[in-house]
Amino acid sequence: MTQTTVTLPSRRTLTASAPRRLNLDNINPHVKAAKYAVRGELAVKAEEYRVKLSQGDKSLPFDSVIFANIGNPQQLDQKPISFFRQVLSLLENTTLLENPEALRTHFGYQQDVIDRAKALLADVQSVGAYSHSQGAPIIRDSVAKFIEERDGFPANPQDLYLTAGASSGVSTLLNIICDGPSAGVLVPIPQYPLYTATLSLLNAQCVPYNLEEDKAWGTDVNAIRESLAKAKAAGTDVRSIVVINPGNPTGASLSAEDIKSVLDLAAEEKLVVIADEVYQTNIFTGEFISFKKRLRQLQQEVPSKYDNVELVSLHSVSKGMVGECGHRGGYFELAGFDPEVAAQIYKYVSIMLCPPVIGQCLVELMVNPPKEGSPSHELYQKEYNGIRDGLRKRAFALYEAFQRMEGVECQEPQGAMYLFPTITLPAKAIEAAKAENRAADEFYCLALLDATGVCVVPGSGFGQKENTLHFRTTFLAPGTDWVERIVKFHSEFMAKYK
Amino acid sequence: MTQTTVTLPSRRTLTASAPRRLNLDNINPHVKAAKYAVRGELAVKAEEYRVKLSQGDKSLPFDSVIFANIGNPQQLDQKPISFFRQVLSLLENTTLLENPEALRTHFGYQQDVIDRAKALLADVQSVGAYSHSQGAPIIRDSVAKFIEERDGFPANPQDLYLTAGASSGVSTLLNIICDGPSAGVLVPIPQYPLYTATLSLLNAQCVPYNLEEDKAWGTDVNAIRESLAKAKAAGTDVRSIVVINPGNPTGASLSAEDIKSVLDLAAEEKLVVIADEVYQTNIFTGEFISFKKRLRQLQQEVPSKYDNVELVSLHSVSKGMVGECGHRGGYFELAGFDPEVAAQIYKYVSIMLCPPVIGQCLVELMVNPPKEGSPSHELYQKEYNGIRDGLRKRAFALYEAFQRMEGVECQEPQGAMYLFPTITLPAKAIEAAKAENRAADEFYCLALLDATGVCVVPGSGFGQKENTLHFRTTFLAPGTDWVERIVKFHSEFMAKYK
Repeated sequence: MTQTTVTLPSRRTLTASAPRRLNLDNINPHVKAAKYAVRGELAVKAEEYRVKLSQGDKSLPFDSVIFANIGNPQQLDQKPISFFRQVLSLLENTTLLENPEALRTHFGYQQDVIDRAKALLADVQSVGAYSHSQGAPIIRDSVAKFIEERDGFPANPQDLYLTAGASSGVSTLLNIICDGPSAGVLVPIPQYPLYTATLSLLNAQCVPYNLEEDKAWGTDVNAIRESLAKAKAAGTDVRSIVVINPGNPTGASLSAEDIKSVLDLAAEEKLVVIADEVYQTNIFTGEFISFKKRLRQLQQEVPSKYDNVELVSLHSVSKGMVGECGHRGGYFELAGFDPEVAAQIYKYVSIMLCPPVIGQCLVELMVNPPKEGSPSHELYQKEYNGIRDGLRKRAFALYEAFQRMEGVECQEPQGAMYLFPTITLPAKAIEAAKAENRAADEFYCLALLDATGVCVVPGSGFGQKENTLHFRTTFLAPGTDWVERIVKFHSEFMAKYK
Repeated sequence: MTQTTVTLPSRRTLTASAPRRLNLDNINPHVKAAKYAVRGELAVKAEEYRVKLSQGDKSLPFDSVIFANIGNPQQLDQKPISFFRQVLSLLENTTLLENPEALRTHFGYQQDVIDRAKALLADVQSVGAYSHSQGAPIIRDSVAKFIEERDGFPANPQDLYLTAGASSGVSTLLNIICDGPSAGVLVPIPQYPLYTATLSLLNAQCVPYNLEEDKAWGTDVNAIRESLAKAKAAGTDVRSIVVINPGNPTGASLSAEDIKSVLDLAAEEKLVVIADEVYQTNIFTGEFISFKKRLRQLQQEVPSKYDNVELVSLHSVSKGMVGECGHRGGYFELAGFDPEVAAQIYKYVSIMLCPPVIGQCLVELMVNPPKEGSPSHELYQKEYNGIRDGLRKRAFALYEAFQRMEGVECQEPQGAMYLFPTITLPAKAIEAAKAENRAADEFYCLALLDATGVCVVPGSGFGQKENTLHFRTTFLAPGTDWVERIVKFHSEFMAKYK
């Protein structure tokens, strides 16, 4: 550094007493109202503990922080898939392509890696250049082919919008759909809080519908109808319904019949369906059926009834066996939308210019992995299956641990990356929480973090039925030590407040 | 593809006549109202021409499309800087690090490339993992050091927020600042339309202040005071002022005195200053002075007067000699903000989880390039200077061409990546535009595109004084052929409508 002789007091001191233009009482009230627990107080505290430990602090009662609060596979144990990263390395430094022989000999790059990088570069020119605001054409073509193969129905690249992760896609869509304070969107409870937070920012109405915990967190269309009727009676203009399949935080995976019942409702009530399908490959039970496929089937089977259904489906590179959340890649597909509305979506996304191009390329690799017979296929398949099997193993290990814990009930793992157990806490614990002006599940999760370094998210961060308590934990962290930490903590906590 | 026997009519046909839930009249009206010409009709048409040409179409009167509408250096001629891309390739495929000898021998990777990749990975773990929502700590540390060296005043990593390009930072800040329809933000005219578009989305007031074309597009604080008084009288709660320095689309570079006059106004009128400094290294005349430096100088010189100034400064990897817009990297620095407001900004950005991690790493490389004496320094400096000199050369070549054109006046290039000439069109051309229900400058730019394949943006897309016409062109495209295309078109256009 060239200078350090500055005598100016630090910024924080300088301004501590000065009156400011912006304060908590005059900023955008909708930002203030938004809640997002996944990265809230607990996550901040966990990060502080991590920093302390990394600085050699020995005062904490644990020697590592386990971030089980967020689906961040590569922060924990998950290795990236080699084929993906080999191609990305070539896209970042195209001069590597000038010596394919050395790439092969010293680094094991196969010909299909090199070919793929060249094919992508032929379209995007440079990953440092802005692309088309909807995403590079070659990548949208690959996504369309992927959807066609997955569903058995046509997909049109013009209906695809690449995004900086699914979150940014959800934000775009809710920004288009919500026209003011009376606009409402049906959101499952519990839900991933992106939905409620974004609706808060837009000053629109979240119309909650409860999932059925005792039916493996299933979606009950009668519960939806009830919420809808209530919201309508209260003057809310309900425009859309969000379905997260497989569920977050619940892990539930919807059947063909469940999906049909949502589409029936959408057709009857004219609701735009937002299908959050980012966990589509994280399935332990049954098979994933996309909303798009089901819609097209129904449109074939029953003429006219479903013609007016507007559906948007989201996917992402962050989850599944890809787990590349730091790259912020994803897409959404519109079906049945008015072309004029689609044009407005294009304008809206163009204001932010384009999604990250390297993330777009990763979307292409995800939807178009090495085919059987191609040189990289065997390694790809081995890595992919290894990740899938590891996730399943950990999910069930955690599930079994929960079964051993007093007052904890958990649905069998079906999909996604999370378990969402119910906890029944002693009255004294609930009183102690109240004395600290905290929700009881938050109180429990904070105590868990302080005692064990394991960071989970209280159920109140996702919404839960009144008088129930939960927490969400990922099953991404390796080993079983951290699971045992939870078991031990829980038994001590229950004893303390008995 | 596994199936193609689908008999379903195409989506577009299927739904063309069906009544839809969402249409142009009931979506978010603020999205509908937003204007963003940089990627509007002209850009869409230019892309269509590009596709036609790439498919071998010979019917067009030109053989290439020149995208001079957007500052997208690597789409045109600019090569990425080797050091940056070498490091990024290692971050994407960390197994390359296992054979440093082969990296050196076959690909010319120097030791500092390898060391930097390792240092970044020690903090971010994987570029596929979510980072801290404000950005990875190691990267914010580097940015703080860069600001300290640039300005000679301290910077605090806690005040830094990494972003997905500066655009996303601007969006965040305006979302915090604007609390409803009466909130106003002073915006220079002409301006980069991100500002007006985002204010439209927020249903807040754009309070325009004119830049002085005849004083090299300077910022006149009296013009600002006038606009401010008018807006206040109309009941607008003016909260903030945007300054783009160096200017976009004008290229103007502000003097220390100009900056002081804006800060004086901000102190007196309690305005949050948004300093868009993404072109800080694109300077042809004089030197870049940051708002932060000037503020800290004034705070030292004049006790108390400037204590309450809230400033946020933005920077990006997209422009300068870096030109990596496709990577979507940037940051903003808060100075003088209320910590409670900063906490709300953190919550807001955390809803989108984190900016792209590879883009964050590129920010680190931009602010911390190879130092003198390090193995990669010489090549870095050579590439950097080559880009800088090329930009200057092209800027002046274009400027000289404009001087040869009848009815075109242009300020001498000072900075940024754009020229923004005035055009004086014959009355008949203005009538012909009116007949097509178009602004005259848009009419001119469309005619230019149709005749030459050169895509520029009409001045109306940025705002301009009444009864003046302009267009914005980048000077990024290589060669002089395209400049001559403009000269020839212009003379024919003027003759046609004389």
